[in-house]
Amino acid sequence: MQGRGKFITLEGGEGSGKTTMISKLGSYFEEQGIPYVVTREPGGIEIAEKIRAIILNPLHTAMDARTEALLYAAARSQHLAEKVEPALKAGKTVICDRFVDSSLAYQGYARGLGVENVWAINRFAIGELMPDVTLYLDIEPEAGLARIDAHDGREVNRLDLESLEFHRKVREGYFLLKEQFPDRIKVIDASQKQEEVLAAMILSLETGILKDFDE
Amino acid sequence: MQGRGKFITLEGGEGSGKTTMISKLGSYFEEQGIPYVVTREPGGIEIAEKIRAIILNPLHTAMDARTEALLYAAARSQHLAEKVEPALKAGKTVICDRFVDSSLAYQGYARGLGVENVWAINRFAIGELMPDVTLYLDIEPEAGLARIDAHDGREVNRLDLESLEFHRKVREGYFLLKEQFPDRIKVIDASQKQEEVLAAMILSLETGILKDFDE
Repeated sequence: MQGRGKFITLEGGEGSGKTTMISKLGSYFEEQGIPYVVTREPGGIEIAEKIRAIILNPLHTAMDARTEALLYAAARSQHLAEKVEPALKAGKTVICDRFVDSSLAYQGYARGLGVENVWAINRFAIGELMPDVTLYLDIEPEAGLARIDAHDGREVNRLDLESLEFHRKVREGYFLLKEQFPDRIKVIDASQKQEEVLAAMILSLETGILKDFDE
Repeated sequence: MQGRGKFITLEGGEGSGKTTMISKLGSYFEEQGIPYVVTREPGGIEIAEKIRAIILNPLHTAMDARTEALLYAAARSQHLAEKVEPALKAGKTVICDRFVDSSLAYQGYARGLGVENVWAINRFAIGELMPDVTLYLDIEPEAGLARIDAHDGREVNRLDLESLEFHRKVREGYFLLKEQFPDRIKVIDASQKQEEVLAAMILSLETGILKDFDE
């Protein structure tokens, strides 16, 4: 019988290719016969979706920054309880697109709420359920934003439009988190070709947790 | 010009007469010519009302206890930002029916989430905005529940129906909070006649903050 699954989170700034690389990582797991689930908050969980709808409602211009951070944390705990935890228990590897480090880097560090403060509410939200490994797809903000314009053809969103200065600050935040959680967070050079990025991700997982699969 | 108003919170178990006493305290402020506002979360604040609606939706049986605590904290920070803080700045005294101590006593202590844990997220939610004085209307759970049956004629709600054991635990929680915040929390014997309870409340406020009004 399969044991408990591994919990992997992916982080990365705009244009880091995160979505594409998650899909490729999934295909790799598929080939390897490793049962997995890809998700991102709110992940179709009704209560989490309703919470997220309050955050994203454009009429809610009066929303306080603390309220927003608490709502993100609330959606997080519900998504964990209803989707991530059951999948891990069923022996599946869970790949989650953004998790606690996004809150810490964006809200805690770049927006100035304080990493310690945002960490306090997230520690409450996730209980003991920290990721086994976090892959941070790193790219220089200039290169990332240029990629969005040139490649993806997708609509540039609100965060894209933030100043380069903000994106630099977010990146700085991730590097500080890497110092705080050196074992958990693996920095991947996302400026490479996709095949190289994927190879680096798999290598980081192998040196991290994938070796457990061989046992 | 009037300075910043005082922030008073009222706490009390079922049948402690809290609602009645808040109304009487308001009348007293009226007579004294002290501008005041009575509120309770979510207090008509749209974002806070929507958050509360998620908490209270009877279909949300899958709601995780941590999610619930985070949502209460989120509604709290929004109610503070949009209602309490502006009133205090306008020089009004704010009387809030239940506040952070309710979360600590009910969720943190009686429901077992941990007072320290619930305090961590509430500290984030309220920032620096702690009440100047908190009046805890204390009554033995047996007496309180008997009062609801006999006097009020109001419908007994879900919390009323919890076991006496639970209400004893909540009361124990409030006494522990009194030890933790001895200056802020004033325990009022709510088993007395209403006039006596009101007198005790006013006396507690005088020894606490009302003396500032004479300056």
